[in-house]
Formats: sequence, C-alpha cells, structure tokens
Amino acid sequence: MDLRILQELAEENDRKILLLVLDGLGGLAMEPGGPTELEAANTPNLDALAADSSLGLMDPVAPGITPGSGPGHLALFGYDPFTHLIERGALSCAGVNFPMEPEDIGIRMNFATSDDAGAIIDRRAGRIETSRCAELCKKLEKAVAIEGGEVYIRPEKEHRAAVMLRGPGLSDAVTGTDPQSTGLPPLAAVPTDGSPEAARTAEALNELTRQAAEILADDHPANAIIMRGAAKKPTLPQMQEVFKLNPVAIATYPMYKGLARLVGMDVIEGLDRVEEVFEALGDALDRYNFFFCHVKPTDSRGEDGDFDAKVRVIEEVDALIPTIALEAFAAVAVTGDHSTPSKLRTHSWHPVPALIWSPTCRADGLPNFTERACATGSLGRFRGVELMPQLLAHAERLKRYGA
Amino acid sequence: MDLRILQELAEENDRKILLLVLDGLGGLAMEPGGPTELEAANTPNLDALAADSSLGLMDPVAPGITPGSGPGHLALFGYDPFTHLIERGALSCAGVNFPMEPEDIGIRMNFATSDDAGAIIDRRAGRIETSRCAELCKKLEKAVAIEGGEVYIRPEKEHRAAVMLRGPGLSDAVTGTDPQSTGLPPLAAVPTDGSPEAARTAEALNELTRQAAEILADDHPANAIIMRGAAKKPTLPQMQEVFKLNPVAIATYPMYKGLARLVGMDVIEGLDRVEEVFEALGDALDRYNFFFCHVKPTDSRGEDGDFDAKVRVIEEVDALIPTIALEAFAAVAVTGDHSTPSKLRTHSWHPVPALIWSPTCRADGLPNFTERACATGSLGRFRGVELMPQLLAHAERLKRYGA
Repeated sequence: MDLRILQELAEENDRKILLLVLDGLGGLAMEPGGPTELEAANTPNLDALAADSSLGLMDPVAPGITPGSGPGHLALFGYDPFTHLIERGALSCAGVNFPMEPEDIGIRMNFATSDDAGAIIDRRAGRIETSRCAELCKKLEKAVAIEGGEVYIRPEKEHRAAVMLRGPGLSDAVTGTDPQSTGLPPLAAVPTDGSPEAARTAEALNELTRQAAEILADDHPANAIIMRGAAKKPTLPQMQEVFKLNPVAIATYPMYKGLARLVGMDVIEGLDRVEEVFEALGDALDRYNFFFCHVKPTDSRGEDGDFDAKVRVIEEVDALIPTIALEAFAAVAVTGDHSTPSKLRTHSWHPVPALIWSPTCRADGLPNFTERACATGSLGRFRGVELMPQLLAHAERLKRYGA
Repeated sequence: MDLRILQELAEENDRKILLLVLDGLGGLAMEPGGPTELEAANTPNLDALAADSSLGLMDPVAPGITPGSGPGHLALFGYDPFTHLIERGALSCAGVNFPMEPEDIGIRMNFATSDDAGAIIDRRAGRIETSRCAELCKKLEKAVAIEGGEVYIRPEKEHRAAVMLRGPGLSDAVTGTDPQSTGLPPLAAVPTDGSPEAARTAEALNELTRQAAEILADDHPANAIIMRGAAKKPTLPQMQEVFKLNPVAIATYPMYKGLARLVGMDVIEGLDRVEEVFEALGDALDRYNFFFCHVKPTDSRGEDGDFDAKVRVIEEVDALIPTIALEAFAAVAVTGDHSTPSKLRTHSWHPVPALIWSPTCRADGLPNFTERACATGSLGRFRGVELMPQLLAHAERLKRYGA
C-alpha cells in the first residue's frame, strides 16, 4: 500500500500505540523436535497477553528475505523496505545523532588491527571498549585532514564509529575500504560513477586510511581503520506527517535510535539495561502517543549462539511485561525485526512471531506466544509493513477508505 | 495481480458462480471472552456448508484499512480498490440508474434541516421517508436552474439523493458543501484547480444551495441541501470483457446496484426483503452465470449497534441457505464487503470471514462458519481482490498461465 494513501487516511487523536520490538526474536530448535528459544522460555505474562491478542507470523521484509536491522525496523515503522533503503553510513551518523546536511557523506568506520605489512588481521580491533573508541575518535578527528573539506568522527559501540565528510563537492558514489576478510590490506576506495565528486571522495577516503595508519601506529590493537557504506542523508517521510503520530524511541543502541530519528521520532537517551527501557516507557507515557521500545540482547545472544542466554533475555522481558500500563494503550504489538536463531548465530529469514493486543482486537485465545501458536493465529502470515496500518486502525487513527 | 493477466486467462463456459455478500458480516465480541455475532447466531446451514468448504479471513482492501462500500465491493468483484476508486457522486448516480454521459458531474446530496440563521442542525433531515424524498426531488428539479446547464435530481433512500449536472464545461475539481457537522451553514463549494470549468461548477453548486433554501423554505425538516463527492462517471473494465462472465446483481439497495452496473452487471429491480433476494436468485438461475447477491441488514443492524438484531439477520440468511440450488453452481463464496461489529456501530478494518464452496474445493472440515474457524482455514488471510480468481478457477474459467 502506498504511503500516500495511509497519509490521506491518517488522523490525529489521543490514543496511544506501543511497538515492543525484541530484536531477533524468532528462533529455531537446536535439535529436531526440540523447542525454540520462545518455546523453552517460561513466559507466563506474554502467554496471558497472547491469549487476549491476535497472533501471526510476520515476514519483516518478504518471505525468504533476511533483513538487516534497517529494513526490518523501517517495515515495522510502516515504511516499505524496498522503497526506503538506508545505507550503513547514513545509519551510523543518525545513530550518533550527527546533524548531517544534505551534501554531507556519512560512512561506517571500524577500528581494526593490522600487521606490520599493513594487512588487516582483526576487522574489529579485539572489540575495544567504547570508551577507548571514543578517545581514538577524538585523536583521529583532530589529526586527519582532507583537502577542501572537513572530517568528523564519532564513536558508536565498541570498535564502531561514524565518519562524516563535509564538502562541498563530495559524492556517495564510492566503494568502501573494508576488505571484509582478514589477511588483506584495506581496499582502495574507487568511484562508481565518472563524476569528479566521486573521484574526489574516493581520494579522501584513501587519504584518511593512510593518515589513520600513521596516527594510530602506536595504538595496537586499534592501529588501522576500514570504512564502508558511504551515503548521503536519506529523506524519509516523517511519522508526524504521514501517520499524524507524536512518536518516541526508547532504545539503548545507537543504530536503533538513529533509525528512529530518521523517521522523526524523539529519542530518550541514557538508557542501558532492559529494565531501564520499560521504566522509561512508564515515564514517557504522558508525552507521546507512539512508543517504539527496543530490546537488543535477544539478538545479541542469538548471534552469540547462546540458546540458554537468549531464553533468559526473553524471560527477563516477560517479567517486565506487567510493568506496562496496558490500559493506557489502544494497541500494542510485540514482535521482532527479524529472527536470530541461536542455532544459526545470525539474522535469518524465518518469519517472526507477532502479537497485536487491543480492546478492539479479536482475541485468538491461543495458549502461548510461540512460533507454533503464532502460525495458527488470525493475523495469518503477513508482511512487516502491514503491521503499522493495523495498529493505527486499532487506535482508530485511520479514516474509512473510499465512499 | 494485473487485471490484464486475468483477462488473458479468462474463458467462457457454462459454469455458474455465486457471490453471496452479507454486508458488514464480520463482528466482535461485545465483552472480552464473549461471542461475535456469527458465533452467537444459530447457523446450522452455514455451518454444514462451511464443513464442505475452504475457509479464510479476508481483508477486503488491505490489513488495517476500513473499506467504504465501494472499495469493499469492487475488490470482491475482482478489481483492485487502490486502482479503481469510485467517488461518492458517481456511485449515487449509478445507484439510481442515472445514465451519465462522460462530461456529466454526479453529486451525492442530502436533504438536511437548517435553523433560521441557515445553520445545519440535522444533516439527515430526520431521515425523511424515501417517498417524501422523491416528492422533494421532483419539486427541486423543476424549480432550480443553473446557467447554461441542466440539473437532474433523483431520490436514493431516505434523505439521500443523487444530483447530476449536465454541461458543457463542467468539472469534478470542486469541494462539496457538506459541513460534515451541525451548527454550521453549508460550506461554499470551491474549485480545486484553476480551470474555468471548476470555477463554473463551484458557482453552480453554490447557486443550487441558495435556490434550494428558498424552494424548500416551507418543507421543514427538509429545508436545506448539502452536497459532496462531485465526480465524473468512472470507466471500469466490464466483467463481460475481463472475466467473460454474464453477471447479474440481486440487491435491494441503490448503491450496490449502482456499483454492479458500473462493472457491467445486469440488475434485478423491485426487491426489498432478504428472502426476495434468494427467490430472485432461483428465478434468474438460467439467465446468467455470475450472481452477486447482496444482503444489507447485517450491516444496518451492526451500524445500529444492535448485536441481537444482527444475530437474527444472520439466522434469517442461514434459514434461506437451503433454498440455494447448490448443485447448479461450480463455485460459491459467502463473505462480507467489510466488518461492521455491533460493538463499534460502524464499518471496521477487521478481516471478514469467507467461505469458498465448490465440488473442486479442498474441504477444511471446520465445524462452523465463524471468525475463529475462518482464522484456521486453508484460504488463510487473503485480500478481497484475490477472491474472484479463485472463484473463476473453481468454475474452470481460467486457462493455465504460461507454458
């Protein structure tokens, strides 16, 4: 459905919507016949909520497609992830709340470890502490220089940072320098079109790489940088305009805050642990009418391949469910932005369990919130982008379509 | 799916299809844990049919979208409601079987009540009788005049009427005069583009409003008119051409007959009660091969918020199901054009129970025809526009696609 149709139908009221995202929620059995993480977890509160809700299985982007965090979340926010693609560099800059201008170029940077010959031997510099990353970003930003432009470098988490080049005369039509494997030196960035702007930007990235190697020579294991995902600031329709919502993001990780900012959400800063997300939800209740709450560790533990730890995160969230003032909401969704089965240790294409609770939902009366129960729910198998219209509908925020 | 693909695949034969639409069929429980209207109704005949059918939940337009009657029905007729939108005025003119020319402008008119200061105090003129509406339409049509054009006014039901302006030099790029709330005078119609045709049409609507106030001065409560939905005649592909069907509409309400005419259906006139619809179906059986039967009171009682009365209408329909000569049909669908839960007293976005019976269907063997049973049926959760291809298929009216 075209966003313009939703924009025509959307109207303001004071009803509230909660979108609770357990990142990488969907799972797999470790052995044939075994339980998934959700099935193994003891979740009395989610199960009780599920019994009063409509359940379904959601393909965040499309069946068979493994979403990155960007497309997975954009779909949940109501944006077609095939139409609206955000490059990594823009996401990084948004994540660190970097005020990009339309002509600026954002780039994702990793600190990395190189050997004496200049070959990258660890693409993550031993996952240095975020505080160390911040020191090195400051040091680098101070010392590097590109001709006729400015360079800003800000830390994300651990070895990750956001680089912003401010022109004039730069382009995002360049390849990155990340070799994507070890044993190779950083690649030379090359222009992907024939413009002088692209040539100039590629030269700037290569110059940065050379300068960083000198500046960081004594900072082993973070003695090199690799860059990827050069991008201009994307222009996404804002949730206020399209959906007539006053939205807030309650998240701990920079990237998700960045995504939220790109669609117009306010962001609550300074949160770290899962229970702080739920506390902040309670605190913010009077100030907004759309709440995106993001729980990261379900995904992280799945990526670690730690089935039991992912189960414990799910149980931690379950124990916090009763802290949600359910009666304050006209519609609540609990779902993920993609599956991250511990068995696969990475994002996957498996559809994600999803639940919509509302005083106006048809309660499926299913006994629990699991992949299997969701497979028989009345939401059916649906696409991520179809979630938001249903939440808006339950909040009576969509006018009738057509006469 | 593009209609042109269906048109390429469709072929004629003598197999018959029945589309039985219970308007606003889908419902909600009045209280948590309670039954929906369909669940509360005693429907032995629909339940027996359901056991032999494929069941599913249908989103008439798309998940979360509350359809007007136009989009809901167009989808059931196989037309994408995002591509084919019919404005209210064109629908009204089609409903009263007004032969619109391509340059004519159709408008929906309400008789209304205004106070001495000219403010509208009842947008429906106390829901005057249809016969009174007909008298007043005649009176108005005779007395009004617009410069260089003709005005036709025909009664629909109760306070509703269709106005047609015949030019030349008119446009549908005008706003209506309906203030959409009480306490305000009729709005001034204004052009929405800069054309002289739009300016001229807006002036004609304002002139009609002024003249009607004078002509109807002594006809309280119908002493004013309000107008909306100015539109030219839509050009829809005809069912004969696209689907190679010989279709008929068996309906009691003007608007549904109008919709059916716009896609090429014959219309059986003079029907009023639900059982007359079923009688007419039997009578017309030999003359057509596609039958659209429309039952209105399920929606009306839902809009009244009268749960028990909606239950009774469903039971009335159930009792008439055995009068259908099932063996005459290759495919039968029973569904709605949208949900109208008594609890909400209006159209809603909730998916609609749907059933496809055919000698070639896979019978789901589900015990009854309810929202909950349909949620587990083999049709899954599907879109309204996907119904017609399945009916055509069961009637063996679609060739194989591709080599």
